[in-house]
Parts: sequence; structure tokens; C-alpha cells
Amino acid sequence: MPDTLLITRAPLGAGLAVETWTLNDPASRNALTDAMVDALLAACTRARNDGALRGVVLRGAGGHFCAGGSLGGFAKTIGQPLDAGMPDPLVPLNRRFGTLLQALCGLPQWLVIAVEGAAMGGGLGLACCGDLVLADANAQFGAPEVTLGLVPAQIAPFVVRRLGPAAARRWLLSGTRSGAAAAQQAGLVDEVVSGAMDEAVQAAVQRLASTAPQAIAATKHLLAQVQGSLPLPALLDDAAHLFAHALRGPEAPQGLAAFTARKPPPWSAAA
Amino acid sequence: MPDTLLITRAPLGAGLAVETWTLNDPASRNALTDAMVDALLAACTRARNDGALRGVVLRGAGGHFCAGGSLGGFAKTIGQPLDAGMPDPLVPLNRRFGTLLQALCGLPQWLVIAVEGAAMGGGLGLACCGDLVLADANAQFGAPEVTLGLVPAQIAPFVVRRLGPAAARRWLLSGTRSGAAAAQQAGLVDEVVSGAMDEAVQAAVQRLASTAPQAIAATKHLLAQVQGSLPLPALLDDAAHLFAHALRGPEAPQGLAAFTARKPPPWSAAA
Amino acid sequence: MPDTLLITRAPLGAGLAVETWTLNDPASRNALTDAMVDALLAACTRARNDGALRGVVLRGAGGHFCAGGSLGGFAKTIGQPLDAGMPDPLVPLNRRFGTLLQALCGLPQWLVIAVEGAAMGGGLGLACCGDLVLADANAQFGAPEVTLGLVPAQIAPFVVRRLGPAAARRWLLSGTRSGAAAAQQAGLVDEVVSGAMDEAVQAAVQRLASTAPQAIAATKHLLAQVQGSLPLPALLDDAAHLFAHALRGPEAPQGLAAFTARKPPPWSAAA
Repeated sequence: MPDTLLITRAPLGAGLAVETWTLNDPASRNALTDAMVDALLAACTRARNDGALRGVVLRGAGGHFCAGGSLGGFAKTIGQPLDAGMPDPLVPLNRRFGTLLQALCGLPQWLVIAVEGAAMGGGLGLACCGDLVLADANAQFGAPEVTLGLVPAQIAPFVVRRLGPAAARRWLLSGTRSGAAAAQQAGLVDEVVSGAMDEAVQAAVQRLASTAPQAIAATKHLLAQVQGSLPLPALLDDAAHLFAHALRGPEAPQGLAAFTARKPPPWSAAA
Repeated sequence: MPDTLLITRAPLGAGLAVETWTLNDPASRNALTDAMVDALLAACTRARNDGALRGVVLRGAGGHFCAGGSLGGFAKTIGQPLDAGMPDPLVPLNRRFGTLLQALCGLPQWLVIAVEGAAMGGGLGLACCGDLVLADANAQFGAPEVTLGLVPAQIAPFVVRRLGPAAARRWLLSGTRSGAAAAQQAGLVDEVVSGAMDEAVQAAVQRLASTAPQAIAATKHLLAQVQGSLPLPALLDDAAHLFAHALRGPEAPQGLAAFTARKPPPWSAAA
Repeated sequence: MPDTLLITRAPLGAGLAVETWTLNDPASRNALTDAMVDALLAACTRARNDGALRGVVLRGAGGHFCAGGSLGGFAKTIGQPLDAGMPDPLVPLNRRFGTLLQALCGLPQWLVIAVEGAAMGGGLGLACCGDLVLADANAQFGAPEVTLGLVPAQIAPFVVRRLGPAAARRWLLSGTRSGAAAAQQAGLVDEVVSGAMDEAVQAAVQRLASTAPQAIAATKHLLAQVQGSLPLPALLDDAAHLFAHALRGPEAPQGLAAFTARKPPPWSAAA
């Protein structure tokens, strides 16, 4: 079984290095599994204390960034009855993804996100954590949760922060997809790449290599403080409960079943 | 006397429905009267508890969305002396419009705003509450309050939230008008409609009909929480006092009189 | 020795006036000195209490707006040893610039910023305080601090407020320059001026002259409240410490020395 997260490291002058973290489950378009979230969290923890690391590039293997949460995993969970009186195990599971988003946003190094193909749901959330977001001209962004009876729960604060309230509202409540140009217009994408992504990433890394590592860490700390008026942990806790409540039904089981059967969900005008 | 707010209801699959709320005083370009605000507030209260309602479309009759507060009403109020030691009745009257904006933003259903013609002052505030804002290519947006000696009081937090601080500052402090394209650039308008508005509204409703109603309610609740760091009620209270203070003069009576007389106000360089 | 801040006053109807404040040290592209900050603070204090003043235009002499903090001043400070146990005098010096930005943003009159040439670092911070920001088509904006081992400390909250978190992150962490069109796209610039700046300023002043002075003051007070959830003073205190810590090294002395010697800094891949 291959690693769900590939990590490579390259020198970047002055004895320092840049790492590339590659989500690696091409068959599922790098859908987020528990193992993948664990691996990303571990990488963040290690990076925080790595004084020789200047920056991180996050991308996906096989032509897609990340298709979002694993619908198969959700469907399996719905099938398992919840013990009366016991806390819902879905809540900490969902909340853990918010912890990852916080950890990514909190990296003291610069974080470049390189999006090819799909960045959906949780993948959209990951993209919102970038200090610099590159997108292939054919990239697709979206939050289809509400069309499945799910709630874009952990990603909501990060999408609002990145896109602003108006665009976040349009994206999260409509469930429609946006291309790279619309994502740049909305403030999510910093640079639309029309040529080879490898070269665009390399060029961005070279530009960022002119910044001083400690100055970057101090500036990122300051930016986090400026945005810090939001009581993020409490908000993400609430979001996890909303997510679990949605997944327990009645809409999500119908939405996921319809999606699997390639039929319109019961609330659709086409049903 | 016709209803100031027309409400129609149409089926939208699965036994659910969408409503269209139409501001209906074409002669005044649907200027906001107390009766209209009351009718909108009542519609919001009813909608909150209507489990069969999936969404609301808000628009104006006769080719205009809403010209803002009724200047005639303001002028009449100015003429009435204020009893010494008594609270100014203007304060709760103005504050009530903020309560309406909160109620519209707090609808658990999606809210589509369809703007044709003018969306000025309070009408701009209404537009800022939309989850999806459609604008005819000839629509005009603006907040002329400061040019009349008035304060864009209740709408200010909603405009800042929708447009961001920079564009909100430009719009609210300059008093100039913006067309649909500029309003889209500023983040107010999601879609500029070049064809028939009826068809564009119908298409938007069909797209939104693919979303699950409970998931939408949960996501809107979450978005409200994300934006909730603002102490909105206290802020709107203060805004109402600022508005009443401005309307009591000295500038507003001069501004409104000049507007009525089609002359430049005394502070204008042209005066 | 000429004044570092030139102040001229022109009538604007109804016995009221507009002032133009011109940063005046063309040889340094109007780099911010302590004397210039003092003069701007004094002008703000005076303007706050000047009931006959309707607005202020802030610009730079000699074809540039403001090149930012004086690197020569920074270099001199680095050379002076810090007494053990004594508070770092850099902290209040840096914090004072944040006080100026607060004072500019807090002016009860409208503030037009007219940018020609460079608006870098602290100059970018000044531009973020404008109610209306005009930029010559050839203007250049940026925050090169992190490429010098410095922290864009006092300006960070104002840049985030004006550009939003996404664009602010890109600008402050990359250290690269943006032209007028990109700055307009990012929300910093309200109007790109392709003709003569004097005429564009004059036209903007004439438009703003149609607004009522007390209504403007009340609206600006309200806008400040809407944005007031940020605990700005504490944040700027922290930022001043981050700035002083960065300037005390090890990166900043290397970065400034490399800049002076026209060599790449040691952390650069080109070093």
C-alpha cells in the first residue's frame, strides 16, 4: 500500500530547504481519508519545529488536487447505528479536519498550494490555507456539500476568510463549481497557470526564496493575530456537530444514495 | 389601496415551494414606507417557521427594486417638533429597518435578490442580504445619504459585510451611483443579467433547487456564526441615534429642501 | 531645511476648505522620517478640531508618494548597542507609526490619497487609510519588508482591512511589487488615473464636495465602529515588538547590508 502523502525535500540555498507534500490517492482523486488527514497533521507538526525548512508546496498526484471528503467513508458511517446516550464519533472525526486546516494556516513557513483538476469540499478548504495559490487553467473549485444533504462545516470559516462573506455565501450555498478564472476573481486563486504547473511552482518558490525565514514567521504570526478576532475553536466545534447532525439524516443518506445511483435527490425539482 | 408587498408561491418539487416577494409601490419606485417594512418583517417571521418553503425571491414592481427610504416621510418628520426630555421616536423607527435587514439575512431558506432599476439607500441595504444577487445590466446602486445630510445608518454594517471595508467606504462616503458591472466588481452583484430578468430568476431558482433544505439552513446558521463577531444589535442601536441626530439637523433639513427644490445644498461647491 | 510636510488650503464653498498635505523629501522619494511622522500626526490632531475643514488630500512631492521607512535610519539604529535590561527604544518608535495610521483613518473629514510613483512599506500603510485612493497608471505598490529581514508590522492590520486577508497575505508575504491595475483589482486603489493627477484630484474633490460635512463625520464614525471588533491598540503594540525584534537581527542587519551593497541577502537562493 503506497503512502497517502508523499514528501520530498529539495535544497533552497543557505543550507535551507523546501518540501513538496503530495496527496497520493489518484484513483479517488485524492479524496481525504483519515490516514491522509493524519499524515498531513504529522507533517505540519514536524514542519513547525523544522528550522531548516523555508516553505511547503502542497499538491495532488495524478492531475487532481483533492476531491474532498471520502463519500464512501460517509456512506459507511451512516450505516452504523449510533449508541443511545453515547457521543457521536462523527463529531471529533469531522472536527479533526478543522484542526488540520488550523495547522496548515499556522505553519511558520510560507505555504504554496498548486491546484490541478478538482479542489472540492475539503479540498477547497485546504486551498484556502495557502499563502500563494496557483491554479491550472482547467482547475475546478466548489463545495457540493449542500447538494448532497451535507454541511460544508469545517471549511466554512476558512472559505469566508479567504473569499470574503459575499463570494463565500455564493459558493457554499449554491454548490456549483467555479473555474480558475472565477476563483481568481473571488480572491481564492492568486495566479492562473496556463503552462506547466511544475515550472510555475518552481518560479513561485524562487520568488519566495528572496524572503527572510524569521521575518516570514513573524509576519504570519501577526496576520494570524489580525484575523484572530474569530473564536475559531468554538466555531469549529459547533460546525462538527452541525456536520454530524446532517450526516445522520434524513437528507444526507438520501443525497449520498442518489449520488451513488446517479439519480437526482428527492429534494431536486427533477426528482 | 393595493398591498405594498405582493407574495406569490410556486411549487418546487417534493411538496416544497418558493415564494416571490414583490415590493409594490411603483409610483415611488418602491420607496420604503413603514407599512412596507412591517409587511416584510411579517413575511420573514412567517417564512422562518415554514418548513415547506425552500427559498425566497425578493424584487420590486414596475422596473425598479427600491429607491430607499421615503424622503417625503423624512421631510414630514423633520417638521414635527421634538418634545423636550422625550426619547426621539425617529430612533426606534430607524432601528426597525436594521431589524428587518437582520431578519432577511437570518432566513433559513436561500434568498435571491433580483434588482432592476434603482437600488438606493435602504434598497442597497436589502440587496446586501441576498445569498444570490442578480442585477439587470441597467441597474443602479448607491447610497446618496451623505449628499442629503443623512447617514447611511442601519445599512452600514450590511454594506461593509457584503462589499468589504474598502468598497463600502467608497460607496457610503461618496454618495455616487454605481452600475451593475461596478457592483459586480465590488462583490455586491453575483450575476449581471443581460436578458429577461424573469428567466434569469427562474434559472437561479432551478439551480438552487438542487440543494437540500436542512443543509442550507445549517450552512446559513454557520455562516451567520462566522460573521457573528460583530456586536450587531448594539451597533445598529448606535446607528439609529446617529440617523435621528442627522435628520434633526442642521444639514438634513437643508439637504432635503434643496433636493425637493432641485437646487444644490448649501455645502455644495455649486451653491 | 525645507518643511517635510507642506500644507496648503483652498476654499471649497460655504466658507469651508480642503487641505492638501504633501510629503516633501523628494531626494529620498519621501521616505518616512520621525520628523515627517510628527508633522503628519500634528496635522491630524489639528484637522480633527477644524470645523471648517471638509477634506484632506495626501500626496507626495517630486513624482513619488512615499518609499516607506528610512532604511538609513534603520541601519543607524542597528549599529547602536541596546542597554541590557532597558526597554528597546525601537518599540515606541515603530508603534508611533501605527498611531499615525489610526489618526489618519480616524479623521472626521474625507481623506483622498493620490499616489504617483512608489507607495512602499509604510507608504502602502498610508494609502490604506484613504477614503478614496487615486493612483497614477505608473504607480507601484508593495511591502518589501520580508525580503530585507524586516516585518511589515504596523501596516499589517491596515493592509488586511483594506485588501482583505487573501490579497494582504500575498502582498505582505511575497514582498513583490504590484502595479496600479493589480492594486485596483486587490481593492486598494479606487481609481486608476491615466491623465494628469492634479485634474483627477480636483475632480474627486468636486465630487466629494457634494457631501454634507457632519453626515460624513457621523458615517466615518459608524464605519470605524463596524470595523472596531479588532483590538487594534494591543495588536499594534505586539507588532512593534515583532518589528524591533526583527530589526535587532540576525536577519535584518544582513538584509539591509546586502541591500546597501546591492548583493543578494544570505537567505537568497542566489547568494
